[in-house]
Amino acid sequence: MSLWNIELNEYNKYDNEKYETIFTLANGYKGLRGALEFSKVGNKGNLIAGVFDKSYAQVTEIVNCQDPLGFNIYIEDELVDIDECNIHKFNRTLNMKEGVLYSEIYISTKSGKTMNIKSERLVSRNNVHRWASRYEISPGNFSGKVFIENIIDGTVTNSTKDPMSRAKHFQVVGSYDLEPGMALLTKTFDKNIQIIEATRIISEKDNGNAFKFRKYSEIGEKVVEVYETFLKKDNPITIYKYGTSYTSRDTQENLISIASKDLQLFVKEGYLKEKQDHIKVWENIWEDTDIKIVGDDLAQLGIRFNLYHLSSSAYEGDDKVSLAAKALHGEGYKGHVFWDTETFMLPYFIYTRPQVAKCLLMYRYNTLKGARKNAELTGYKGARFPWESADDGMEVTPKWGFDYDGNPVRIWTGDEEYHINSDIVFAIVEYYRATGDKDFIIKYGLEILLDTTKFWQSRVEYNKEEDRYEINCVIGPDEFHEHVNNNVFTNYLAKWSIKKTLEFAEWVKTEDESVLKTLCNKLGITEEDFHEWNEIQKKIYIPTSQNGIIIEQFQGYFNLADIPIIQHDENGMPMWPNLGEYKLGETQLVKQADVVQLMIMLSEEFSQEIIKANYEYYEARTMHKSSLSPSMYSILGLTVGDTHNAYKYFIKALYTDLRDNQGNTDFGLHAASTGGSWQSAIFGFAGLKVSKEGDLSIKPWIPEHWRCMEFNINWRDARINIRIEKENIFIKSDKHTSITVYEKKINVLANNFVKIPR
Amino acid sequence: MSLWNIELNEYNKYDNEKYETIFTLANGYKGLRGALEFSKVGNKGNLIAGVFDKSYAQVTEIVNCQDPLGFNIYIEDELVDIDECNIHKFNRTLNMKEGVLYSEIYISTKSGKTMNIKSERLVSRNNVHRWASRYEISPGNFSGKVFIENIIDGTVTNSTKDPMSRAKHFQVVGSYDLEPGMALLTKTFDKNIQIIEATRIISEKDNGNAFKFRKYSEIGEKVVEVYETFLKKDNPITIYKYGTSYTSRDTQENLISIASKDLQLFVKEGYLKEKQDHIKVWENIWEDTDIKIVGDDLAQLGIRFNLYHLSSSAYEGDDKVSLAAKALHGEGYKGHVFWDTETFMLPYFIYTRPQVAKCLLMYRYNTLKGARKNAELTGYKGARFPWESADDGMEVTPKWGFDYDGNPVRIWTGDEEYHINSDIVFAIVEYYRATGDKDFIIKYGLEILLDTTKFWQSRVEYNKEEDRYEINCVIGPDEFHEHVNNNVFTNYLAKWSIKKTLEFAEWVKTEDESVLKTLCNKLGITEEDFHEWNEIQKKIYIPTSQNGIIIEQFQGYFNLADIPIIQHDENGMPMWPNLGEYKLGETQLVKQADVVQLMIMLSEEFSQEIIKANYEYYEARTMHKSSLSPSMYSILGLTVGDTHNAYKYFIKALYTDLRDNQGNTDFGLHAASTGGSWQSAIFGFAGLKVSKEGDLSIKPWIPEHWRCMEFNINWRDARINIRIEKENIFIKSDKHTSITVYEKKINVLANNFVKIPR
Repeated sequence: MSLWNIELNEYNKYDNEKYETIFTLANGYKGLRGALEFSKVGNKGNLIAGVFDKSYAQVTEIVNCQDPLGFNIYIEDELVDIDECNIHKFNRTLNMKEGVLYSEIYISTKSGKTMNIKSERLVSRNNVHRWASRYEISPGNFSGKVFIENIIDGTVTNSTKDPMSRAKHFQVVGSYDLEPGMALLTKTFDKNIQIIEATRIISEKDNGNAFKFRKYSEIGEKVVEVYETFLKKDNPITIYKYGTSYTSRDTQENLISIASKDLQLFVKEGYLKEKQDHIKVWENIWEDTDIKIVGDDLAQLGIRFNLYHLSSSAYEGDDKVSLAAKALHGEGYKGHVFWDTETFMLPYFIYTRPQVAKCLLMYRYNTLKGARKNAELTGYKGARFPWESADDGMEVTPKWGFDYDGNPVRIWTGDEEYHINSDIVFAIVEYYRATGDKDFIIKYGLEILLDTTKFWQSRVEYNKEEDRYEINCVIGPDEFHEHVNNNVFTNYLAKWSIKKTLEFAEWVKTEDESVLKTLCNKLGITEEDFHEWNEIQKKIYIPTSQNGIIIEQFQGYFNLADIPIIQHDENGMPMWPNLGEYKLGETQLVKQADVVQLMIMLSEEFSQEIIKANYEYYEARTMHKSSLSPSMYSILGLTVGDTHNAYKYFIKALYTDLRDNQGNTDFGLHAASTGGSWQSAIFGFAGLKVSKEGDLSIKPWIPEHWRCMEFNINWRDARINIRIEKENIFIKSDKHTSITVYEKKINVLANNFVKIPR
Repeated sequence: MSLWNIELNEYNKYDNEKYETIFTLANGYKGLRGALEFSKVGNKGNLIAGVFDKSYAQVTEIVNCQDPLGFNIYIEDELVDIDECNIHKFNRTLNMKEGVLYSEIYISTKSGKTMNIKSERLVSRNNVHRWASRYEISPGNFSGKVFIENIIDGTVTNSTKDPMSRAKHFQVVGSYDLEPGMALLTKTFDKNIQIIEATRIISEKDNGNAFKFRKYSEIGEKVVEVYETFLKKDNPITIYKYGTSYTSRDTQENLISIASKDLQLFVKEGYLKEKQDHIKVWENIWEDTDIKIVGDDLAQLGIRFNLYHLSSSAYEGDDKVSLAAKALHGEGYKGHVFWDTETFMLPYFIYTRPQVAKCLLMYRYNTLKGARKNAELTGYKGARFPWESADDGMEVTPKWGFDYDGNPVRIWTGDEEYHINSDIVFAIVEYYRATGDKDFIIKYGLEILLDTTKFWQSRVEYNKEEDRYEINCVIGPDEFHEHVNNNVFTNYLAKWSIKKTLEFAEWVKTEDESVLKTLCNKLGITEEDFHEWNEIQKKIYIPTSQNGIIIEQFQGYFNLADIPIIQHDENGMPMWPNLGEYKLGETQLVKQADVVQLMIMLSEEFSQEIIKANYEYYEARTMHKSSLSPSMYSILGLTVGDTHNAYKYFIKALYTDLRDNQGNTDFGLHAASTGGSWQSAIFGFAGLKVSKEGDLSIKPWIPEHWRCMEFNINWRDARINIRIEKENIFIKSDKHTSITVYEKKINVLANNFVKIPR
């Protein structure tokens, strides 16, 4: 077993959708779900970042675009359909090092003909508009006529299997015969985004062409090319399928012209060259991002799976898109962007690929207009970032959903989950702390800080009696409890973010006063506002605990029914206790890290004693009904020495999708959990932290069976390599830097190894 | 077992296409293949008589129109898909007496929910534009939310499973929400025929509505209505699905307006009323057509199956369409009309429902323009009816096909199978003999006779040496032999039809000379032509036999390799002998009745001795590779006393589709064989014949185990009932008539039974 490969060796059609997610190939621009060409079972997906549409759907959602993957083989008149075949060999292998999906199947058809099909597929990271497949087809026990059918399918819908939500988001506006090759141009209904997919297939046999006849046709919303060939027993042919994709979001050029020109060039350059270039880019990505864990294959393979998909899901080429909760891997959560991006995924990019992190933050800057509209529409001022965000920053959280029993329930998160504003500010500050990118703060970051603070100013309620500011009727990270007052997470981060806004405003004023002046002018911020902000941040009510130790998640939480979690499943995860007469919201059961989340984000604000007590209190009450939770408990578990559970939660996080432990991998990647997995490794096991003063420190703890853990991080301008072994820690940096290791400040000279005994 | 019911009690998805054909519901206007709503496996079909298109296809073909049948049930989010269910009970029953398809399935879904679904479906014979279904849905072990999805699917293509032939023949030009109900309007590519399908579903529970919510959407080329309902355990709901269909061939009215108005009226009148009226029409049809066979359930059920589908396939409402080789039951032979109609199916209509027979003949009259064009394009004069005919009488036989090994072969039938012209003349004469419909001859029939004779005049070649007319390079009914000279069937019928033309011309001249004059003027026929025709018919070469007894099928046939048929399959049908070095066309093996066919059609021209000898000679050499063959051998077998084989061939013909004994029932009904079955019963077992002098006679022979055979026929103005029992024959007529029984002329007074001892 290579620790770079995710392998599937048995076929079960009921797992197709899960593996479509697991085997998704994406490059930040486009995600192609890992559909098996030779099965009709599944839910294929071609998601292009930023292509959103509402039309018939409940809310604006990512568009499942026309599918260019279609590739059928007919032996005489018999379609090779794996679900109708005997399968003698089945293997699909995602080579994460290369970013290439390999497969090999050996089947007998219903009529008894045998065929071996080896294939490869890649979505190019070298040129994000390109993707390709390669097929090696060997007839086993027959010689005969074979038809190869190349299809671009425009009948694709979103929510295909759900009749009430199913929606078609585009119409076909052009079908093109490229002689050979073909293209299908579509246009979304609402915003008229045009999308083109172009493909061509090329055969190779004995260094020459193997196709004897071609027929092109337009079949409703599909374009189809059929090629006739003649296969000889045990004499394989190779077919390359080239694809290019463009949208009117990317270019002003005529789409059919650019897509077909690029396709032509792609064919000329050849599959092999693109594959090599693509692998080279992936080598660079892995150079930045890999975490080596020696001695624990389970953890090694698992962490790479998470890093691989997280890297696949974003790139530096488009600052008007962000990373969705299900990434480019499925339609789940409608392609919407949540706090998942800033709170869970962004740290990975900040510390490994800051150019991508900047792009993700720029998405928020570029959607400020929508955030302002959200504030205005709900009666507030400034910018109110949406709980769920699509293309323009307007709130797109559905208003209605279904509970566990299928009854309609009002979804309140879009109305009440305000903490998203502070989460974004937190991310900007973290980005700045790690990169020192002043330019970003001055040009973009400060505007977000000011305008979100302006929102808080209008949102907080002054309680005269207590002389304090409150934030009532909210939802915190724990979504089991709605309409709560003074959620600590929300209030604490609001306070913190207002404070940071004041600090950054002060700092920018000294750097370039005109910038601040211009911003205040634009956003309508006066000196009085600054004073009021200062008052608010000082007086925001942070509920204290009964005993000064355990923090009450929100006002009144301690009065709720305290129903103990008694049973755990085979993975050690909590099972639902009997709620008796209580509704879920009437208990202290928590969906996911909330106070715990706060203690990770603002760890410098809490003593070790308080952290430990709160970790223990909430760990006993958390159901982990969100994939965002286990990784966070892993981090805090390591902080407080609960290493057994920390490791359990780490593995749980790593295998969220590979083991489908939330039961919905079908619908896309648990992207937050991929970021949480990285955080758990780096912030947890390596104990990496930035102090209040802005200094970098590590405090590693690794399990007994790990012989070594090694990774790179970007810190300011430096690339630091950290290798944690049983006895020693080795640190190397390409620039002179300093780092605190177990409370001791270490100077690291450029390109010199420093060895620190543990 | 009711002898009116075709039942299927076991489900096997691989039989779906076969049963789609067997369970097709048609009314002459429209055929809806018997797709099972709850399976995705199959090849659904909605064929509307006369709707032809070529566009991307090889030749003009019947259009598989948008499918209005779509009806999905979702239990919560789980689609009821029979191929994913455990099946506890499965029954589909075609009640042929009523023309209603009943079904009942009881299944458990993958998640373990049980449901019983009873349904009915009819394609109304009372109003050919209407069809409907009724569903009774009972949840077994659950109560819960259920979605009902009503779909009209415009993604339908022809030859869906064959990538090289697949073609889309229409585009969607209108999607309509009828609130409730919906309609989809399409338009064919070539001739802009517009087709509308409209449907509405109505629920009923405790005498009230059961639907709680409706959502309409347009999904690409589909329109979809989803209804939400809540089912209680063991508490069934009933859903009626109403449908109307119109095309721009039928009406000048706005299609959406007429279809939705009719739909509204249909719903108002109710399913039950339409069902009753529909059954009443079928009662009348059965009154005209049924053949009772007492003592032989196999034959009784089998003959009704054939009569049922033949009756379904044509009606008196459209004289611009005819009955295709696969009827309205499938896309096989592209919906083309062959000699099958006139030679095999028409006698049934002539003797039972002459108004339909007239319509079928009118189709030929109405396509004379195309037939004239065919003659002109191939260098001849007059009218040359196409071997394969679609909407306009132009030749639409494909030029290329594939042999048994999949190699492309030139198809010559469209170039050389000239006998179709005489087959049509033969049918006209037969129609006239049975009905005495002078008006038809004067207005339409004679023109066909004259113009086809004009074709023969230009086609025959004068052999000066032998002083005879020859017809060379032809294909006779036996298509194993191409480019043959002087095929006896072709030459004999050409001779006969020219002779009949001269007789009818003479007769019309005496009836109304101006008619003949006008026709001669229009068709360019002079007195010299009449003389030449007479010369030709006298001197057409009819190859004589070596010994004066066995007729040589064509010149040179006796010189071919005489390879004996050695083996027969379990049904007693011949198996391919080893051809050795010979190609099929180099042997005396015959595809189907050829000389034998001639001896049935023109039996009065041959002595009993010659018929017997030729029957035996060719029976030993016929492979029956056409479903047109067994019934004919059955008839001639009875004539010559080979009763054992005659019965075998009769059963073979009856069960052509029910036992799929040609292996291609998937693609549609073997319509010629249904007509052949009727002929075998009536012309064979009852021995019904019209003498040269035009007198009706019967000469029954029935198998030992038949207690009785009874049927009605139309003869001139009379309806004659004939009941053949072991000892006696009973004859009754509603008008005074005479009939020859076993060579003895019997007078039958109106409404009196005549009993004739056998």
